[in-house]
Amino acid sequence: MPPTFDDTIAHASTARSVFFVSDSTGITAETLGSALLANFPGARFERRTIPFVSGTNAVDALEADLRRAAAAGAAPIVFATIKDAGIRSRLARAGAVVIDLLAGHLTELEAELGATAETRAGQYHGLGDLEQYFRRMRAVEFAIEHDDGQSDRDLANADVIIIAPSRCGKTPTTMYLALHYGLLVANYPLTDDDFPTDGLPRIVAPHAARCFGLTTTALRLSQVRHERRPHSTYASLAQCTLEIRRAEDLYRRTHIPFLSSATRSVEEMSAVILQSMSLRDRPHERPLT
Amino acid sequence: MPPTFDDTIAHASTARSVFFVSDSTGITAETLGSALLANFPGARFERRTIPFVSGTNAVDALEADLRRAAAAGAAPIVFATIKDAGIRSRLARAGAVVIDLLAGHLTELEAELGATAETRAGQYHGLGDLEQYFRRMRAVEFAIEHDDGQSDRDLANADVIIIAPSRCGKTPTTMYLALHYGLLVANYPLTDDDFPTDGLPRIVAPHAARCFGLTTTALRLSQVRHERRPHSTYASLAQCTLEIRRAEDLYRRTHIPFLSSATRSVEEMSAVILQSMSLRDRPHERPLT
Repeated sequence: MPPTFDDTIAHASTARSVFFVSDSTGITAETLGSALLANFPGARFERRTIPFVSGTNAVDALEADLRRAAAAGAAPIVFATIKDAGIRSRLARAGAVVIDLLAGHLTELEAELGATAETRAGQYHGLGDLEQYFRRMRAVEFAIEHDDGQSDRDLANADVIIIAPSRCGKTPTTMYLALHYGLLVANYPLTDDDFPTDGLPRIVAPHAARCFGLTTTALRLSQVRHERRPHSTYASLAQCTLEIRRAEDLYRRTHIPFLSSATRSVEEMSAVILQSMSLRDRPHERPLT
Repeated sequence: MPPTFDDTIAHASTARSVFFVSDSTGITAETLGSALLANFPGARFERRTIPFVSGTNAVDALEADLRRAAAAGAAPIVFATIKDAGIRSRLARAGAVVIDLLAGHLTELEAELGATAETRAGQYHGLGDLEQYFRRMRAVEFAIEHDDGQSDRDLANADVIIIAPSRCGKTPTTMYLALHYGLLVANYPLTDDDFPTDGLPRIVAPHAARCFGLTTTALRLSQVRHERRPHSTYASLAQCTLEIRRAEDLYRRTHIPFLSSATRSVEEMSAVILQSMSLRDRPHERPLT
């Protein structure tokens, strides 16, 4: 159904134009800008991301977009990671409210360090050296190879082995730690087969000191499993309750640190695991982005 | 060899203490803070990340750390994503230079939106709704299943298919797009077998409109391949030159947009692909973090 006239009016009157703008990828502008906007749940926003704004054509095009947005309603809000002050002024003159996420902090740092910041545009999520590139590639490949207990090859080299019942969030958390910290992360499912015994699954048992457990609530697990296999025993609340209880018992008995994914994002789980396993103190401490 | 007295002095006199501090995961503080520091290549930094600083114990412990760092040398620099102004003042009183990455921008937004920001700590890389959680999980699983041409099941549903010779960066770029944008991304290797013909590999050919190519320089490819299989034909400069030339010819002939990974980070490649394939204009446009 096409939007009615009333829909259009309602939309136009409530959604504020927001631009995430960068002389590089726009990832920081988009991520930090979105996080800032999340503090205003009552407001509605119309978002666009414009990366790689540095040459004249890109700046001209953006300026035209901003003038159009400003003419159509309230001043557009621009979250900017743009080093060039001249470009930021042009955006402000085009009628935008520019929230500078970068340059102001660079000025603070210059004052504090008694040094001048390099002023090249971009180089923000830079390539880094080849060694860092290898580490990241190796980590992502290790994570793929060791997803869901698929391989025990080279498990002795894992920095962390995430264990949990199916659908507690092992895979995305593994991938986040690999991609952003270059850590070698394996994950291993806890299945019914693992519970006649008292200990960890045979394959991960020798590496208990590097294991980290995930759990969740039975209700949440049941929701997530229903999405995969609706109305199965696997997704039933009874089965989920049982598996969660057994997993948590196992973690306690074997002194494996663990965490519930029920109310946490992948980023939050990753941060807790890094801290709990003291992985930030390793050579890997710096994020790869 | 233990450090000598001179090493210790040199170290103490040049490395500035830096803390990335957050009432949530610390990911933004760490990422944006590191990016800011990268503009001062002449300076040396000693970095620590302290996430989840909100309760009294965590603040007390951090304050003690800052006092120690301040006593040992120049004022420690704190990159903070902490909403509570009281905590930030305590850190400053402990002798730190606090660079506030969050609260100041919230104040700017409050003024512009005429609304008060919610003031809960954390909820910064929040969980989001269950639908978003499913999308991310599905995307990461799709990426694993379709890594390196392993499966053609469901390829018709891919948002993007990244094609390239081996070791051009397909896998980490695929994973980044899946994890951060919830996109369904497959990747497919171009091998010698694909080049007797004039067109795309048979499996991806029906999906040409969603293909994106990667290339690199022959020298770089040779370096990367030597790391995997030293002194092999596979890693030889002659072989790499040939494969790169054939791949670029193929992209041009079949009108596949492409990009060199030689001087770009995974984040930069992802941003270019999003823009080139207009994927930001889709329902997926907002980053998942």
